[in-house]
Amino acid sequence: MSDVLVVGSIALDTVSTPAGKVDEVLGGSATYFSYAASFFGPVRLMGVVGEDFPDKNLDILKEHSVDVSGVQKVPGKTFRWSGSYDGDMAEATTKHLELNVFESFRPDIPEKFQDTEFVFLANGDPETQLHLLDQLQNARFVACDSMNHWIESSREALLKVLKRAEGFVLNDGEARLLTGEDNLIRAGNAIRTMGPKAVIIKKGPHGACLFASEGYFVAPAYPTEDVVDPTGAGDSFGGGLMGYLASKGAWDWTTLKRGVLMGTAVASFNVEGFSFKGFSDVKLYDIIRRSEELLTFSTV
Amino acid sequence: MSDVLVVGSIALDTVSTPAGKVDEVLGGSATYFSYAASFFGPVRLMGVVGEDFPDKNLDILKEHSVDVSGVQKVPGKTFRWSGSYDGDMAEATTKHLELNVFESFRPDIPEKFQDTEFVFLANGDPETQLHLLDQLQNARFVACDSMNHWIESSREALLKVLKRAEGFVLNDGEARLLTGEDNLIRAGNAIRTMGPKAVIIKKGPHGACLFASEGYFVAPAYPTEDVVDPTGAGDSFGGGLMGYLASKGAWDWTTLKRGVLMGTAVASFNVEGFSFKGFSDVKLYDIIRRSEELLTFSTV
Repeated sequence: MSDVLVVGSIALDTVSTPAGKVDEVLGGSATYFSYAASFFGPVRLMGVVGEDFPDKNLDILKEHSVDVSGVQKVPGKTFRWSGSYDGDMAEATTKHLELNVFESFRPDIPEKFQDTEFVFLANGDPETQLHLLDQLQNARFVACDSMNHWIESSREALLKVLKRAEGFVLNDGEARLLTGEDNLIRAGNAIRTMGPKAVIIKKGPHGACLFASEGYFVAPAYPTEDVVDPTGAGDSFGGGLMGYLASKGAWDWTTLKRGVLMGTAVASFNVEGFSFKGFSDVKLYDIIRRSEELLTFSTV
Repeated sequence: MSDVLVVGSIALDTVSTPAGKVDEVLGGSATYFSYAASFFGPVRLMGVVGEDFPDKNLDILKEHSVDVSGVQKVPGKTFRWSGSYDGDMAEATTKHLELNVFESFRPDIPEKFQDTEFVFLANGDPETQLHLLDQLQNARFVACDSMNHWIESSREALLKVLKRAEGFVLNDGEARLLTGEDNLIRAGNAIRTMGPKAVIIKKGPHGACLFASEGYFVAPAYPTEDVVDPTGAGDSFGGGLMGYLASKGAWDWTTLKRGVLMGTAVASFNVEGFSFKGFSDVKLYDIIRRSEELLTFSTV
Protein backbone atom coordinates (compact mmCIF):
# COMPACT_ATOMS: atom_id res chain seq x y z
CA MET A 1 0.00 0.00 0.00
CA SER A 2 1.45 3.36 -1.10
CA ASP A 3 0.24 6.89 -0.46
CA VAL A 4 -1.32 9.06 -3.14
CA LEU A 5 -0.38 12.71 -3.53
CA VAL A 6 -2.69 15.02 -5.46
CA VAL A 7 -2.06 18.64 -6.37
CA GLY A 8 -4.91 20.65 -7.82
CA SER A 9 -7.76 23.01 -7.31
CA ILE A 10 -10.05 23.49 -4.33
CA ALA A 11 -13.12 25.45 -5.32
CA LEU A 12 -16.45 26.86 -4.33
CA ASP A 13 -18.92 25.73 -6.97
CA THR A 14 -22.33 27.04 -7.96
CA VAL A 15 -24.04 24.39 -10.05
CA SER A 16 -27.44 23.97 -11.64
CA THR A 17 -28.70 20.76 -13.22
CA PRO A 18 -32.17 19.50 -14.16
CA ALA A 19 -32.23 18.08 -10.59
CA GLY A 20 -31.70 21.39 -8.78
CA LYS A 21 -29.17 24.03 -7.86
CA VAL A 22 -26.49 24.54 -5.20
CA ASP A 23 -24.51 27.66 -4.27
CA GLU A 24 -20.87 27.90 -3.25
CA VAL A 25 -20.51 24.26 -2.29
CA LEU A 26 -17.19 22.45 -1.98
CA GLY A 27 -15.77 21.61 -5.40
CA GLY A 28 -12.45 21.48 -7.22
CA SER A 29 -10.44 18.78 -8.94
CA ALA A 30 -8.14 17.93 -6.04
CA THR A 31 -10.96 17.69 -3.50
CA TYR A 32 -13.07 15.25 -5.52
CA PHE A 33 -9.94 13.32 -6.42
CA SER A 34 -8.71 13.04 -2.86
CA TYR A 35 -12.06 11.97 -1.43
CA ALA A 36 -12.39 9.29 -4.12
CA ALA A 37 -8.80 8.05 -3.71
CA SER A 38 -9.12 7.86 0.06
CA PHE A 39 -11.59 4.98 -0.19
CA PHE A 40 -8.55 2.88 -1.03
CA GLY A 41 -5.84 4.27 1.27
CA PRO A 42 -3.97 7.33 2.54
CA VAL A 43 -4.13 10.50 0.46
CA ARG A 44 -2.10 13.69 0.67
CA LEU A 45 -3.81 16.78 -0.69
CA MET A 46 -2.07 19.95 -1.87
CA GLY A 47 -4.11 22.98 -2.83
CA VAL A 48 -4.84 26.57 -2.01
CA VAL A 49 -7.85 28.43 -0.68
CA GLY A 50 -8.54 32.09 0.04
CA GLU A 51 -9.35 33.78 3.31
CA ASP A 52 -13.06 33.50 2.51
CA PHE A 53 -12.94 29.69 2.48
CA PRO A 54 -15.10 28.15 5.24
CA ASP A 55 -12.71 25.80 7.08
CA LYS A 56 -15.53 23.40 7.85
CA ASN A 57 -15.60 22.60 4.12
CA LEU A 58 -12.46 20.55 4.57
CA ASP A 59 -14.00 18.52 7.40
CA ILE A 60 -15.58 16.13 4.93
CA LEU A 61 -12.09 15.34 3.60
CA LYS A 62 -10.48 15.14 7.04
CA GLU A 63 -13.19 12.78 8.23
CA HIS A 64 -12.40 10.60 5.23
CA SER A 65 -8.75 10.44 6.36
CA VAL A 66 -7.38 12.80 3.72
CA ASP A 67 -4.19 14.53 4.91
CA VAL A 68 -5.08 18.20 4.32
CA SER A 69 -1.91 19.60 5.89
CA GLY A 70 -0.76 20.57 2.39
CA VAL A 71 -3.68 22.94 1.87
CA GLN A 72 -2.53 26.57 2.11
CA LYS A 73 -4.77 29.47 3.07
CA VAL A 74 -3.55 32.71 1.48
CA PRO A 75 -4.83 36.27 1.21
CA GLY A 76 -7.47 36.64 -1.49
CA LYS A 77 -10.57 34.79 -2.66
CA THR A 78 -11.04 31.07 -3.25
CA PHE A 79 -11.32 29.65 -6.80
CA ARG A 80 -14.95 29.88 -7.89
CA TRP A 81 -16.73 28.05 -10.69
CA SER A 82 -20.32 28.36 -11.76
CA GLY A 83 -21.88 26.13 -14.39
CA SER A 84 -24.88 24.16 -15.55
CA TYR A 85 -25.74 20.85 -17.17
CA ASP A 86 -28.56 20.04 -19.56
CA GLY A 87 -29.79 17.13 -21.62
CA ASP A 88 -27.76 13.98 -21.00
CA MET A 89 -25.42 16.09 -18.82
CA ALA A 90 -22.36 14.85 -20.71
CA GLU A 91 -20.85 18.34 -20.70
CA ALA A 92 -20.94 21.36 -18.41
CA THR A 93 -21.64 24.87 -19.62
CA THR A 94 -19.39 27.24 -17.68
CA LYS A 95 -21.20 30.42 -16.71
CA HIS A 96 -18.51 32.01 -14.62
CA LEU A 97 -14.94 31.23 -13.62
CA GLU A 98 -12.69 33.09 -11.15
CA LEU A 99 -9.27 31.52 -10.62
CA ASN A 100 -8.55 33.91 -7.75
CA VAL A 101 -5.84 32.50 -5.43
CA PHE A 102 -5.43 29.43 -7.68
CA GLU A 103 -4.04 31.64 -10.45
CA SER A 104 -0.73 32.22 -8.68
CA PHE A 105 -0.58 28.78 -7.04
CA ARG A 106 3.04 27.61 -7.60
CA PRO A 107 3.47 25.23 -4.69
CA ASP A 108 6.55 23.48 -3.47
CA ILE A 109 5.97 19.94 -2.32
CA PRO A 110 6.48 19.75 1.47
CA GLU A 111 9.46 17.57 2.31
CA LYS A 112 7.26 15.00 4.03
CA PHE A 113 5.31 14.48 0.80
CA GLN A 114 8.29 14.32 -1.57
CA ASP A 115 8.64 10.55 -1.20
CA THR A 116 5.14 9.80 -2.52
CA GLU A 117 5.09 7.00 -5.08
CA PHE A 118 1.69 7.58 -6.73
CA VAL A 119 1.14 11.18 -7.73
CA PHE A 120 -1.69 12.92 -9.54
CA LEU A 121 -1.16 16.36 -11.03
CA ALA A 122 -4.74 17.49 -11.48
CA ASN A 123 -5.71 19.99 -14.13
CA GLY A 124 -3.56 23.13 -13.80
CA ASP A 125 -0.81 25.14 -15.45
CA PRO A 126 1.65 22.71 -17.12
CA GLU A 127 4.55 24.94 -15.97
CA THR A 128 3.46 24.28 -12.39
CA GLN A 129 3.11 20.57 -13.18
CA LEU A 130 6.73 20.58 -14.43
CA HIS A 131 7.85 22.41 -11.29
CA LEU A 132 6.18 19.71 -9.18
CA LEU A 133 7.67 16.87 -11.23
CA ASP A 134 11.14 18.27 -10.46
CA GLN A 135 10.55 17.86 -6.73
CA LEU A 136 9.42 14.25 -6.66
CA GLN A 137 12.05 11.88 -5.26
CA ASN A 138 10.39 8.46 -5.39
CA ALA A 139 7.50 8.69 -7.80
CA ARG A 140 6.69 5.38 -9.48
CA PHE A 141 3.51 6.44 -11.24
CA VAL A 142 2.74 10.06 -12.01
CA ALA A 143 -0.51 10.75 -13.82
CA CYS A 144 -1.82 14.10 -14.93
CA ASP A 145 -4.98 15.74 -16.19
CA SER A 146 -5.31 18.87 -18.28
CA MET A 147 -7.97 20.94 -20.01
CA ASN A 148 -8.70 22.82 -23.22
CA HIS A 149 -7.26 26.07 -21.89
CA TRP A 150 -3.78 24.59 -21.30
CA ILE A 151 -3.84 22.47 -24.44
CA GLU A 152 -4.38 25.63 -26.46
CA SER A 153 -2.26 28.13 -24.52
CA SER A 154 0.62 26.03 -23.09
CA ARG A 155 0.97 23.16 -25.51
CA GLU A 156 4.77 23.01 -25.39
CA ALA A 157 4.89 22.85 -21.60
CA LEU A 158 2.11 20.27 -21.56
CA LEU A 159 4.04 18.09 -24.03
CA LYS A 160 7.02 18.24 -21.65
CA VAL A 161 4.77 17.09 -18.80
CA LEU A 162 3.47 14.22 -20.93
CA LYS A 163 7.01 13.06 -21.72
CA ARG A 164 7.59 12.64 -17.99
CA ALA A 165 4.21 11.27 -16.86
CA GLU A 166 3.39 7.58 -16.76
CA GLY A 167 -0.35 8.21 -17.03
CA PHE A 168 -2.65 10.78 -18.62
CA VAL A 169 -6.34 11.01 -17.75
CA LEU A 170 -8.38 13.29 -20.00
CA ASN A 171 -11.81 13.55 -21.54
CA ASP A 172 -12.81 12.89 -25.14
CA GLY A 173 -13.00 16.55 -26.15
CA GLU A 174 -9.55 17.23 -24.75
CA ALA A 175 -8.14 14.18 -26.53
CA ARG A 176 -9.51 15.45 -29.84
CA LEU A 177 -8.18 18.96 -29.24
CA LEU A 178 -4.72 17.75 -28.24
CA THR A 179 -4.27 15.41 -31.21
CA GLY A 180 -6.45 16.91 -33.94
CA GLU A 181 -7.94 13.43 -34.38
CA ASP A 182 -11.73 13.09 -34.40
CA ASN A 183 -11.52 9.32 -34.10
CA LEU A 184 -10.93 8.57 -30.40
CA ILE A 185 -8.97 5.40 -31.11
CA ARG A 186 -6.52 7.36 -33.23
CA ALA A 187 -6.46 10.09 -30.58
CA GLY A 188 -5.69 7.64 -27.76
CA ASN A 189 -2.90 5.99 -29.72
CA ALA A 190 -1.47 9.35 -30.76
CA ILE A 191 -1.29 10.47 -27.13
CA ARG A 192 0.63 7.32 -26.23
CA THR A 193 3.34 8.39 -28.65
CA MET A 194 3.66 11.65 -26.65
CA GLY A 195 4.93 9.75 -23.64
CA PRO A 196 2.37 8.35 -21.21
CA LYS A 197 2.37 4.56 -21.00
CA ALA A 198 -1.27 4.58 -19.89
CA VAL A 199 -3.72 6.93 -21.59
CA ILE A 200 -7.24 6.99 -20.18
CA ILE A 201 -9.98 8.80 -22.07
CA LYS A 202 -13.14 9.57 -20.10
CA LYS A 203 -16.35 9.68 -22.11
CA GLY A 204 -18.89 10.58 -19.41
CA PRO A 205 -22.08 8.54 -19.90
CA HIS A 206 -20.28 6.43 -22.53
CA GLY A 207 -17.68 5.10 -20.10
CA ALA A 208 -13.91 5.24 -20.31
CA CYS A 209 -11.20 3.61 -22.38
CA LEU A 210 -7.60 2.78 -21.63
CA PHE A 211 -4.76 2.65 -24.15
CA ALA A 212 -1.46 0.98 -23.29
CA SER A 213 1.18 -1.09 -25.04
CA GLU A 214 -0.54 -4.19 -23.67
CA GLY A 215 -3.81 -3.39 -25.39
CA TYR A 216 -7.10 -1.56 -25.33
CA PHE A 217 -9.67 -1.71 -22.56
CA VAL A 218 -13.18 -0.26 -22.30
CA ALA A 219 -15.29 0.19 -19.19
CA PRO A 220 -18.96 1.03 -19.69
CA ALA A 221 -20.40 3.78 -17.52
CA TYR A 222 -22.43 2.47 -14.61
CA PRO A 223 -26.07 2.53 -15.79
CA THR A 224 -27.27 5.26 -13.45
CA GLU A 225 -30.87 6.34 -13.99
CA ASP A 226 -30.75 9.36 -11.71
CA VAL A 227 -27.80 11.59 -12.45
CA VAL A 228 -28.10 14.56 -10.09
CA ASP A 229 -24.82 16.41 -10.71
CA PRO A 230 -21.87 15.24 -12.80
CA THR A 231 -19.51 17.87 -11.32
CA GLY A 232 -16.39 16.11 -10.12
CA ALA A 233 -17.16 12.81 -11.84
CA GLY A 234 -13.99 12.94 -13.90
CA ASP A 235 -11.85 13.83 -10.87
CA SER A 236 -13.54 11.15 -8.77
CA PHE A 237 -12.76 8.72 -11.57
CA GLY A 238 -9.09 9.74 -11.41
CA GLY A 239 -9.12 9.38 -7.63
CA GLY A 240 -10.64 5.92 -7.74
CA LEU A 241 -8.14 4.84 -10.37
CA MET A 242 -5.06 6.23 -8.57
CA GLY A 243 -6.25 5.15 -5.13
CA TYR A 244 -6.67 1.62 -6.38
CA LEU A 245 -3.24 1.53 -8.09
CA ALA A 246 -1.57 2.87 -4.94
CA SER A 247 -3.41 0.34 -2.76
CA LYS A 248 -1.91 -2.41 -4.92
CA GLY A 249 1.43 -0.61 -5.21
CA ALA A 250 1.37 -1.52 -8.90
CA TRP A 251 0.28 -0.36 -12.32
CA ASP A 252 0.64 -3.45 -14.47
CA TRP A 253 -1.97 -4.04 -17.19
CA THR A 254 -4.43 -6.00 -15.06
CA THR A 255 -4.18 -3.52 -12.19
CA LEU A 256 -4.71 -0.61 -14.59
CA LYS A 257 -7.84 -2.25 -16.00
CA ARG A 258 -9.23 -2.89 -12.52
CA GLY A 259 -8.32 0.70 -11.65
CA VAL A 260 -10.41 1.99 -14.55
CA LEU A 261 -13.35 -0.07 -13.27
CA MET A 262 -12.84 1.28 -9.72
CA GLY A 263 -12.67 4.84 -11.04
CA THR A 264 -15.88 4.28 -12.99
CA ALA A 265 -17.59 2.85 -9.93
CA VAL A 266 -16.50 5.73 -7.66
CA ALA A 267 -17.63 8.28 -10.26
CA SER A 268 -21.03 6.60 -10.45
CA PHE A 269 -21.62 7.41 -6.78
CA ASN A 270 -20.33 10.96 -7.22
CA VAL A 271 -22.99 11.84 -9.80
CA GLU A 272 -25.83 10.69 -7.54
CA GLY A 273 -25.79 13.91 -5.51
CA PHE A 274 -24.62 17.52 -5.56
CA SER A 275 -21.07 18.25 -4.38
CA PHE A 276 -19.98 15.36 -2.11
CA LYS A 277 -23.50 14.20 -1.19
CA GLY A 278 -23.37 11.25 -3.58
CA PHE A 279 -20.58 9.78 -1.43
CA SER A 280 -22.61 9.85 1.79
CA ASP A 281 -22.63 6.40 3.35
CA VAL A 282 -20.61 4.88 0.50
CA LYS A 283 -18.13 2.28 1.71
CA LEU A 284 -15.27 0.63 -0.14
CA TYR A 285 -17.25 -2.58 -0.56
CA ASP A 286 -20.02 -0.64 -2.36
CA ILE A 287 -17.42 0.52 -4.86
CA ILE A 288 -15.95 -2.94 -5.26
CA ARG A 289 -19.43 -4.36 -5.78
CA ARG A 290 -20.20 -1.86 -8.54
CA SER A 291 -16.83 -2.44 -10.19
CA GLU A 292 -17.66 -6.15 -10.35
CA GLU A 293 -21.14 -5.40 -11.63
CA LEU A 294 -19.57 -3.33 -14.44
CA LEU A 295 -17.71 -6.41 -15.62
CA THR A 296 -20.92 -8.43 -15.77
CA PHE A 297 -22.53 -5.83 -18.08
CA SER A 298 -20.02 -6.79 -20.75
CA THR A 299 -19.88 -10.50 -20.11
CA VAL A 300 -21.82 -13.04 -22.13
CA MET B 1 -31.23 -22.65 -38.28
CA SER B 2 -34.14 -20.39 -39.28
CA ASP B 3 -34.52 -17.97 -42.16
CA VAL B 4 -34.53 -14.21 -41.70
CA LEU B 5 -37.02 -12.00 -43.52
CA VAL B 6 -36.30 -8.30 -43.84
CA VAL B 7 -38.60 -5.65 -45.28
CA GLY B 8 -37.21 -2.17 -45.87
CA SER B 9 -35.63 0.29 -48.21
CA ILE B 10 -33.34 -0.23 -51.17
CA ALA B 11 -31.65 3.00 -52.14
CA LEU B 12 -29.16 4.75 -54.32
CA ASP B 13 -26.90 6.74 -51.99
CA THR B 14 -24.62 9.68 -52.61
CA VAL B 15 -22.29 9.99 -49.66
CA SER B 16 -19.36 12.18 -48.75
CA THR B 17 -17.10 11.64 -45.75
CA PRO B 18 -13.61 12.89 -44.84
CA ALA B 19 -12.37 9.77 -46.69
CA GLY B 20 -14.01 10.57 -50.04
CA LYS B 21 -17.26 10.63 -51.97
CA VAL B 22 -19.41 8.13 -53.86
CA ASP B 23 -22.36 8.75 -56.19
CA GLU B 24 -25.52 6.70 -56.53
CA VAL B 25 -24.09 3.56 -54.95
CA LEU B 26 -26.19 0.74 -53.52
CA GLY B 27 -27.62 1.68 -50.12
CA GLY B 28 -30.80 1.27 -48.10
CA SER B 29 -31.68 -0.30 -44.78
CA ALA B 30 -32.87 -3.66 -46.11
CA THR B 31 -29.85 -4.14 -48.37
CA TYR B 32 -27.25 -3.56 -45.66
CA PHE B 33 -29.30 -5.63 -43.24
CA SER B 34 -29.69 -8.57 -45.63
CA TYR B 35 -26.02 -8.68 -46.60
CA ALA B 36 -25.01 -8.63 -42.93
CA ALA B 37 -27.56 -11.24 -41.87
CA SER B 38 -26.59 -13.56 -44.73
CA PHE B 39 -23.18 -14.20 -43.16
CA PHE B 40 -25.10 -16.38 -40.70
CA GLY B 41 -27.72 -18.08 -42.88
CA PRO B 42 -30.50 -17.70 -45.44
CA VAL B 43 -32.08 -14.26 -45.82
CA ARG B 44 -35.24 -13.21 -47.63
CA LEU B 45 -35.32 -9.60 -48.78
CA MET B 46 -38.43 -7.56 -49.56
CA GLY B 47 -38.12 -4.10 -51.01
CA VAL B 48 -38.91 -1.95 -53.98
CA VAL B 49 -36.86 -0.24 -56.66
CA GLY B 50 -37.73 2.02 -59.58
CA GLU B 51 -37.23 1.43 -63.28
CA ASP B 52 -33.96 3.36 -63.10
CA PHE B 53 -32.39 0.85 -60.72
CA PRO B 54 -29.36 -0.92 -62.23
CA ASP B 55 -30.15 -4.63 -61.80
CA LYS B 56 -26.48 -5.45 -61.36
CA ASN B 57 -26.66 -3.62 -58.04
CA LEU B 58 -28.47 -6.62 -56.59
CA ASP B 59 -25.76 -9.01 -57.75
CA ILE B 60 -23.72 -8.37 -54.65
CA LEU B 61 -26.66 -9.57 -52.54
CA LYS B 62 -27.45 -12.54 -54.80
CA GLU B 63 -23.83 -13.63 -54.71
CA HIS B 64 -24.05 -13.53 -50.91
CA SER B 65 -27.02 -15.94 -51.09
CA VAL B 66 -29.71 -13.37 -50.29
CA ASP B 67 -33.07 -14.37 -51.76
CA VAL B 68 -34.00 -11.22 -53.71
CA SER B 69 -37.16 -12.67 -55.26
CA GLY B 70 -39.18 -10.37 -52.98
CA VAL B 71 -37.72 -7.22 -54.52
CA GLN B 72 -40.27 -5.49 -56.75
CA LYS B 73 -39.42 -3.23 -59.67
CA VAL B 74 -42.17 -0.68 -60.26
CA PRO B 75 -42.64 2.40 -62.45
CA GLY B 76 -40.92 5.45 -61.03
CA LYS B 77 -37.58 6.32 -59.52
CA THR B 78 -35.60 4.47 -56.84
CA PHE B 79 -35.31 5.86 -53.30
CA ARG B 80 -32.38 8.28 -53.19
CA TRP B 81 -30.46 9.59 -50.21
CA SER B 82 -27.61 12.00 -50.18
CA GLY B 83 -25.67 12.88 -47.05
CA SER B 84 -22.34 13.61 -45.44
CA TYR B 85 -20.40 12.85 -42.28
CA ASP B 86 -17.94 15.03 -40.40
CA GLY B 87 -15.89 14.95 -37.21
CA ASP B 88 -16.23 11.62 -35.42
CA MET B 89 -18.87 10.64 -38.02
CA ALA B 90 -21.33 9.66 -35.30
CA GLU B 91 -24.19 11.25 -37.20
CA ALA B 92 -25.06 11.85 -40.85
CA THR B 93 -26.18 15.19 -42.22
CA THR B 94 -28.89 14.55 -44.79
CA LYS B 95 -28.53 16.82 -47.81
CA HIS B 96 -31.27 15.40 -49.94
CA LEU B 97 -33.91 12.70 -49.64
CA GLU B 98 -36.31 11.40 -52.29
CA LEU B 99 -38.56 8.56 -51.16
CA ASN B 100 -39.79 8.04 -54.74
CA VAL B 101 -41.19 4.49 -55.19
CA PHE B 102 -40.56 3.70 -51.50
CA GLU B 103 -43.22 6.24 -50.49
CA SER B 104 -46.10 4.08 -51.67
CA PHE B 105 -44.47 0.74 -50.78
CA ARG B 106 -47.25 -1.25 -49.04
CA PRO B 107 -46.11 -4.79 -49.75
CA ASP B 108 -47.87 -8.04 -49.08
CA ILE B 109 -45.60 -10.81 -47.87
CA PRO B 110 -45.34 -13.49 -50.58
CA GLU B 111 -46.90 -16.74 -49.37
CA LYS B 112 -43.54 -18.53 -49.49
CA PHE B 113 -42.11 -16.01 -46.98
CA GLN B 114 -45.07 -15.94 -44.57
CA ASP B 115 -43.69 -18.80 -42.47
CA THR B 116 -40.44 -16.92 -41.58
CA GLU B 117 -39.62 -17.14 -37.88
CA PHE B 118 -37.12 -14.26 -37.54
CA VAL B 119 -38.38 -11.06 -39.09
CA PHE B 120 -36.94 -7.56 -39.24
CA LEU B 121 -39.16 -4.64 -40.14
CA ALA B 122 -36.57 -2.05 -41.08
CA ASN B 123 -37.23 1.65 -40.77
CA GLY B 124 -40.45 2.52 -42.60
CA ASP B 125 -44.05 3.67 -42.14
CA PRO B 126 -45.41 2.05 -38.96
CA GLU B 127 -48.77 1.52 -40.73
CA THR B 128 -46.92 -0.65 -43.23
CA GLN B 129 -45.12 -2.43 -40.40
CA LEU B 130 -48.53 -3.23 -38.84
CA HIS B 131 -49.81 -4.45 -42.20
CA LEU B 132 -46.81 -6.79 -42.43
CA LEU B 133 -47.21 -8.04 -38.85
CA ASP B 134 -50.76 -9.12 -39.74
CA GLN B 135 -49.45 -11.44 -42.44
CA LEU B 136 -46.86 -13.35 -40.45
CA GLN B 137 -47.92 -16.90 -39.60
CA ASN B 138 -44.99 -18.33 -37.67
CA ALA B 139 -42.93 -15.42 -36.44
CA ARG B 140 -41.04 -16.18 -33.23
CA PHE B 141 -38.97 -13.01 -33.05
CA VAL B 142 -40.01 -9.83 -34.84
CA ALA B 143 -37.73 -6.84 -34.42
CA CYS B 144 -38.22 -3.41 -35.88
CA ASP B 145 -36.36 -0.18 -36.43
CA SER B 146 -37.78 3.32 -36.83
CA MET B 147 -36.62 6.88 -37.23
CA ASN B 148 -37.31 10.42 -36.05
CA HIS B 149 -39.81 11.09 -38.83
CA TRP B 150 -42.13 8.23 -37.79
CA ILE B 151 -41.65 8.81 -34.07
CA GLU B 152 -42.90 12.37 -34.57
CA SER B 153 -45.54 11.88 -37.26
CA SER B 154 -46.93 8.36 -36.59
CA ARG B 155 -46.39 7.84 -32.89
CA GLU B 156 -49.67 6.00 -32.28
CA ALA B 157 -49.08 3.48 -35.08
CA LEU B 158 -45.48 3.01 -33.95
CA LEU B 159 -46.63 2.27 -30.38
CA LYS B 160 -48.95 -0.41 -31.81
CA VAL B 161 -45.99 -1.94 -33.66
CA LEU B 162 -43.92 -1.93 -30.46
CA LYS B 163 -46.69 -3.74 -28.56
CA ARG B 164 -46.40 -6.58 -31.07
CA ALA B 165 -42.63 -6.70 -31.63
CA GLU B 166 -40.25 -8.79 -29.56
CA GLY B 167 -37.28 -6.57 -30.36
CA PHE B 168 -36.64 -2.92 -31.12
CA VAL B 169 -33.35 -1.70 -32.54
CA LEU B 170 -32.89 2.07 -32.56
CA ASN B 171 -30.23 4.69 -32.10
CA ASP B 172 -29.65 6.93 -29.09
CA GLY B 173 -31.23 10.03 -30.61
CA GLU B 174 -34.37 8.09 -31.54
CA ALA B 175 -34.56 6.59 -28.05
CA ARG B 176 -34.46 10.07 -26.52
CA LEU B 177 -37.07 11.40 -28.93
CA LEU B 178 -39.43 8.48 -28.39
CA THR B 179 -39.29 8.61 -24.59
CA GLY B 180 -38.47 12.22 -23.78
CA GLU B 181 -35.70 10.88 -21.53
CA ASP B 182 -32.21 12.34 -21.94
CA ASN B 183 -30.70 9.59 -19.81
CA LEU B 184 -30.29 6.55 -22.09
CA ILE B 185 -30.74 4.07 -19.25
CA ARG B 186 -34.12 5.58 -18.44
CA ALA B 187 -34.92 5.70 -22.15
CA GLY B 188 -34.07 2.01 -22.66
CA ASN B 189 -36.12 0.94 -19.68
CA ALA B 190 -39.04 3.15 -20.73
CA ILE B 191 -39.10 1.55 -24.18
CA ARG B 192 -39.24 -1.90 -22.61
CA THR B 193 -42.54 -0.89 -20.96
CA MET B 194 -43.90 -0.13 -24.46
CA GLY B 195 -43.71 -3.80 -25.39
CA PRO B 196 -40.43 -5.10 -26.78
CA LYS B 197 -38.72 -7.70 -24.60
CA ALA B 198 -35.34 -6.78 -26.08
CA VAL B 199 -34.48 -3.12 -26.63
CA ILE B 200 -31.17 -2.43 -28.33
CA ILE B 201 -29.85 1.13 -28.45
CA LYS B 202 -27.07 1.79 -30.96
CA LYS B 203 -24.61 4.53 -30.03
CA GLY B 204 -22.32 4.55 -33.08
CA PRO B 205 -18.69 4.92 -31.96
CA HIS B 206 -19.77 4.38 -28.34
CA GLY B 207 -21.10 0.87 -28.95
CA ALA B 208 -24.53 -0.57 -28.24
CA CYS B 209 -26.55 -1.53 -25.19
CA LEU B 210 -29.24 -4.11 -24.67
CA PHE B 211 -32.10 -3.87 -22.19
CA ALA B 212 -34.15 -6.94 -21.26
CA SER B 213 -35.87 -8.36 -18.20
CA GLU B 214 -32.76 -10.48 -17.61
CA GLY B 215 -30.52 -7.46 -17.34
CA TYR B 216 -28.40 -4.87 -19.07
CA PHE B 217 -25.60 -5.55 -21.52
CA VAL B 218 -23.09 -3.22 -23.19
CA ALA B 219 -20.91 -3.94 -26.20
CA PRO B 220 -18.13 -1.47 -26.95
CA ALA B 221 -17.70 -0.39 -30.55
CA TYR B 222 -14.86 -2.16 -32.32
CA PRO B 223 -11.85 0.21 -32.04
CA THR B 224 -11.62 1.07 -35.72
CA GLU B 225 -9.00 3.68 -36.59
CA ASP B 226 -10.06 4.18 -40.18
CA VAL B 227 -13.76 4.78 -40.51
CA VAL B 228 -14.41 5.38 -44.20
CA ASP B 229 -18.21 5.54 -44.35
CA PRO B 230 -20.65 4.79 -41.51
CA THR B 231 -23.64 4.56 -43.87
CA GLY B 232 -25.45 1.30 -43.21
CA ALA B 233 -23.60 0.54 -39.98
CA GLY B 234 -26.80 0.51 -37.94
CA ASP B 235 -28.57 -1.71 -40.47
CA SER B 236 -25.56 -4.02 -40.70
CA PHE B 237 -25.65 -4.21 -36.91
CA GLY B 238 -29.31 -5.26 -37.06
CA GLY B 239 -28.52 -7.81 -39.75
CA GLY B 240 -25.67 -9.33 -37.78
CA LEU B 241 -27.85 -9.51 -34.68
CA MET B 242 -30.87 -11.07 -36.41
CA GLY B 243 -28.78 -13.37 -38.58
CA TYR B 244 -27.07 -14.73 -35.49
CA LEU B 245 -30.34 -15.21 -33.57
CA ALA B 246 -31.87 -17.02 -36.53
CA SER B 247 -28.80 -19.21 -36.94
CA LYS B 248 -29.28 -20.33 -33.34
CA GLY B 249 -33.06 -20.44 -33.68
CA ALA B 250 -33.20 -18.72 -30.30
CA TRP B 251 -33.31 -15.37 -28.57
CA ASP B 252 -32.63 -16.23 -24.96
CA TRP B 253 -30.52 -13.78 -22.92
CA THR B 254 -27.13 -15.29 -23.75
CA THR B 255 -27.97 -15.55 -27.45
CA LEU B 256 -29.17 -11.94 -27.49
CA LYS B 257 -25.91 -10.77 -25.91
CA ARG B 258 -23.85 -12.74 -28.41
CA GLY B 259 -26.08 -11.35 -31.15
CA VAL B 260 -25.27 -7.78 -30.08
CA LEU B 261 -21.56 -8.63 -30.27
CA MET B 262 -22.02 -10.17 -33.74
CA GLY B 263 -23.95 -7.10 -34.90
CA THR B 264 -21.18 -4.86 -33.59
CA ALA B 265 -18.54 -6.94 -35.34
CA VAL B 266 -20.40 -6.94 -38.68
CA ALA B 267 -20.95 -3.18 -38.46
CA SER B 268 -17.24 -2.67 -37.83
CA PHE B 269 -16.47 -4.15 -41.25
CA ASN B 270 -19.22 -2.14 -42.90
CA VAL B 271 -17.67 1.22 -41.90
CA GLU B 272 -14.30 0.29 -43.41
CA GLY B 273 -15.42 1.11 -46.94
CA PHE B 274 -18.03 2.98 -48.95
CA SER B 275 -21.30 1.19 -49.72
CA PHE B 276 -20.64 -2.58 -49.49
CA LYS B 277 -16.87 -2.39 -50.05
CA GLY B 278 -16.07 -2.87 -46.37
CA PHE B 279 -17.55 -6.37 -46.65
CA SER B 280 -15.26 -7.43 -49.50
CA ASP B 281 -13.48 -10.65 -48.58
CA VAL B 282 -15.07 -10.76 -45.10
CA LYS B 283 -15.91 -14.28 -44.02
CA LEU B 284 -18.03 -15.46 -41.09
CA TYR B 285 -14.94 -16.42 -39.13
CA ASP B 286 -13.62 -12.83 -39.40
CA ILE B 287 -16.83 -11.66 -37.76
CA ILE B 288 -16.69 -14.31 -35.07
CA ARG B 289 -13.07 -13.40 -34.36
CA ARG B 290 -13.94 -9.72 -33.92
CA SER B 291 -16.92 -10.55 -31.73
CA GLU B 292 -14.60 -12.52 -29.46
CA GLU B 293 -12.07 -9.70 -29.52
CA LEU B 294 -14.80 -7.30 -28.39
CA LEU B 295 -15.30 -9.38 -25.27
CA THR B 296 -11.61 -9.20 -24.43
CA PHE B 297 -11.70 -5.36 -24.52
CA SER B 298 -13.94 -5.43 -21.46
CA THR B 299 -12.33 -8.32 -19.64
CA VAL B 300 -9.84 -7.89 -16.81
